[in-house]
Amino acid sequence: MSETQRSGCPINLTLEALGDRWSLIVIRDMMFGNRRHFRELLTHSEEGIASNILADRLKRLTENGFLTRADDPSHKQKAIYSLTEQAIQLVPLLAEMGAWGRRHLPATRTLSVRAEILENGGRPLWNAFMDELRESHLGTPRPSTGPKASDQMRDAYLAALKEEGETH
Amino acid sequence: MSETQRSGCPINLTLEALGDRWSLIVIRDMMFGNRRHFRELLTHSEEGIASNILADRLKRLTENGFLTRADDPSHKQKAIYSLTEQAIQLVPLLAEMGAWGRRHLPATRTLSVRAEILENGGRPLWNAFMDELRESHLGTPRPSTGPKASDQMRDAYLAALKEEGETH
Repeated sequence: MSETQRSGCPINLTLEALGDRWSLIVIRDMMFGNRRHFRELLTHSEEGIASNILADRLKRLTENGFLTRADDPSHKQKAIYSLTEQAIQLVPLLAEMGAWGRRHLPATRTLSVRAEILENGGRPLWNAFMDELRESHLGTPRPSTGPKASDQMRDAYLAALKEEGETH
Repeated sequence: MSETQRSGCPINLTLEALGDRWSLIVIRDMMFGNRRHFRELLTHSEEGIASNILADRLKRLTENGFLTRADDPSHKQKAIYSLTEQAIQLVPLLAEMGAWGRRHLPATRTLSVRAEILENGGRPLWNAFMDELRESHLGTPRPSTGPKASDQMRDAYLAALKEEGETH
């Protein structure tokens, strides 16, 4: 980490390492939306992240060990970002954040179904999801051959999107 | 909440409701350090929170439904802050944050022992701790009469402090 830490409390250190809320938003989009390129992260952003903020947070997250950046072999001029093991292990924290927000704040149905699946699946599902992320971001083959946690989340999200389209 | 939300995603809403990292630091100190008054939160702060930042975050957290403020009957000129049910339910999120920070960042032993107990105790301990907080902050008597989660954490913290004193 680049800065002096204000205290050695693990909660404080986590907050300092992550920086501001945009950093977790970027990690969320890479984790649950499988976005790996700058352009995707920018144009598909639900929160409308600004280009300069995105660039800064990608840089900061890379410096702080949450992301790695490499040339994408399939796109000559594009960089591809990957989550590190340290970032993948944020799944439980993001799951708890989603569970809390779903319960206490006016979350929309479509954007909540994935959080609901994560919450109901609990730690076994989080572990399976982390294994999937290790496969796609770190190249470590996942041990389980069962149904993918990400498929469950994607299917539920697409069904909710469709339902939303039918109601509006 | 006072602002327009950037999206209805429960993770985004949680981050927006909490605001910046100082808000979670204040909640952490009320939750684990049992600090209820402005002066305690200011002078015992491990991170050296500034007086104006503390005042602003207490105001913001109160407006956003995480805290309530009342006159302390035992101190005529002091306000006492209490966690709301919504804030008490952040225990799992803070437990995951502590667990992650303890594993990935250079947390000090003394400030990590409570996070370690929370992590090892898992959800049953978090639930017991939330019941304790409901008792002290909301006046709801706790159902269990077993040993207190907070006593376990306090004892471990004091033992670690003593050990630290002996080594230095």
